[in-house]
Amino acid sequence: MAIKVHGALFSTCTARVLICLCEKGLDYELLPIDMVAGAHKQQPFLSLNPFGEVPAFKDGEVSLFESRAINRYLARKHKDIGTDLLLSNSLTQSALVETWMEVEAHKFDSPSSVILRQIIVIPKYGKAPDEQVIETEMEKLGKVLDVYEERLSKSKYLAGENYSLADLHHIPHLVYFMKTSKASAITSRPHVSAWWNDISSRPATVKISATMSLL
Amino acid sequence: MAIKVHGALFSTCTARVLICLCEKGLDYELLPIDMVAGAHKQQPFLSLNPFGEVPAFKDGEVSLFESRAINRYLARKHKDIGTDLLLSNSLTQSALVETWMEVEAHKFDSPSSVILRQIIVIPKYGKAPDEQVIETEMEKLGKVLDVYEERLSKSKYLAGENYSLADLHHIPHLVYFMKTSKASAITSRPHVSAWWNDISSRPATVKISATMSLL
Ligand SMILES: N[C@@H](CCC(=O)N[C@@H](CS)C(=O)NCC(=O)O)C(=O)O
Ligand SMILES: N[C@@H](CCC(=O)N[C@@H](CS)C(=O)NCC(=O)O)C(=O)O
Repeated sequence: MAIKVHGALFSTCTARVLICLCEKGLDYELLPIDMVAGAHKQQPFLSLNPFGEVPAFKDGEVSLFESRAINRYLARKHKDIGTDLLLSNSLTQSALVETWMEVEAHKFDSPSSVILRQIIVIPKYGKAPDEQVIETEMEKLGKVLDVYEERLSKSKYLAGENYSLADLHHIPHLVYFMKTSKASAITSRPHVSAWWNDISSRPATVKISATMSLL
Repeated sequence: MAIKVHGALFSTCTARVLICLCEKGLDYELLPIDMVAGAHKQQPFLSLNPFGEVPAFKDGEVSLFESRAINRYLARKHKDIGTDLLLSNSLTQSALVETWMEVEAHKFDSPSSVILRQIIVIPKYGKAPDEQVIETEMEKLGKVLDVYEERLSKSKYLAGENYSLADLHHIPHLVYFMKTSKASAITSRPHVSAWWNDISSRPATVKISATMSLL
């Protein structure tokens, strides 16, 4: 039975899962959810994800939601296909992947998502972005990126010398972010910039980011 | 070499790790960080966690931060001692643990932490809590707890019939929350209430919650 991803191409959380599927070379079916019509807040979608958010995921009888949990499942199940995205052969390495995945979730996700909403989403509805909010969140994001710069001056990827989910989970927000006037937050930090050049040129990233339709 | 936890007894993130250590019956040393004096924002602490937050963790040469990452590491390394907190023998079960751990991190953590700050921390500094903020966050939390109520009417724990990190990660915030006037958000939902009675009476929870010193 094929893997099914219920989501939307413009959605960063959907893209997070699709990039992982692509890294693993797995076939999947993308079932579009009409989010403009609010299909994610109604049945039958709510029985896939009671929180009414995309993506939702099915692999045979396994029904999951939350993009990062889906990716962990895929990385574990298909550990031996392609890159081992959890570095699961080493307890220490995998613990570093866990740590930097938490950093992405608790430090990077929120400011970057608020900034994208202000700069990209709100103007789509004909409204003006709140410059004060952008400034505050850019300051938060800058502090996080300072830590990344230091970290990436010591290792090629966030969790060490190997690419992992800790890097991959950043990609969807950065794909959009790099198309905004704020991209210099990345390009002005040499190690962060080299890291982004590396992870954004991976075939799986290139393939999925070309389909991300918000911009 | 003993496990070292650098943190503070009142801190919910520190308690999250201590409860996990206790579940596993592991010895550890708690090295108090003088947060009132700002020790977490200075060296040497910053070399343990560049984000300047407790807890930080050392197990021999393994140096980690982020409470949920530390717990995943402990659960994996000591899988065969006590409860298997990641339900790692089944790919499907462990994927459900991952999903509900993400729910805790992305849905439960933020509103509960804002509410605790308003009701418990701010009054400690002689200021009045912002009732409007409390109301908004209680509404968000209520919606999350409605999903939990439905989920826990079908399985004993969040990830299924077995206790896991998905449950454990909620404990520190709930320990404080249950001592506030808002506790009825838990007690008024029969399945959530039964779940809390169960997980709060586990020996590891009882032991660590007795040391949580904010209230
Ligand atoms: N933590 C969740 C977040 C899911 C999420 O926020 N999805 C967005 C699209 S990227 C969504 O469905 N938004 C619509 C809404 O919340 O109404 C995940 O990573 O899967
Ligand atoms: N996501 C982190 C959060 C750590 C965190 O916020 N720690 C709090 C104490 S519970 C802290 O150090 N606060 C002080 C500060 O940020 O200045 C974790 O789970 O370890």
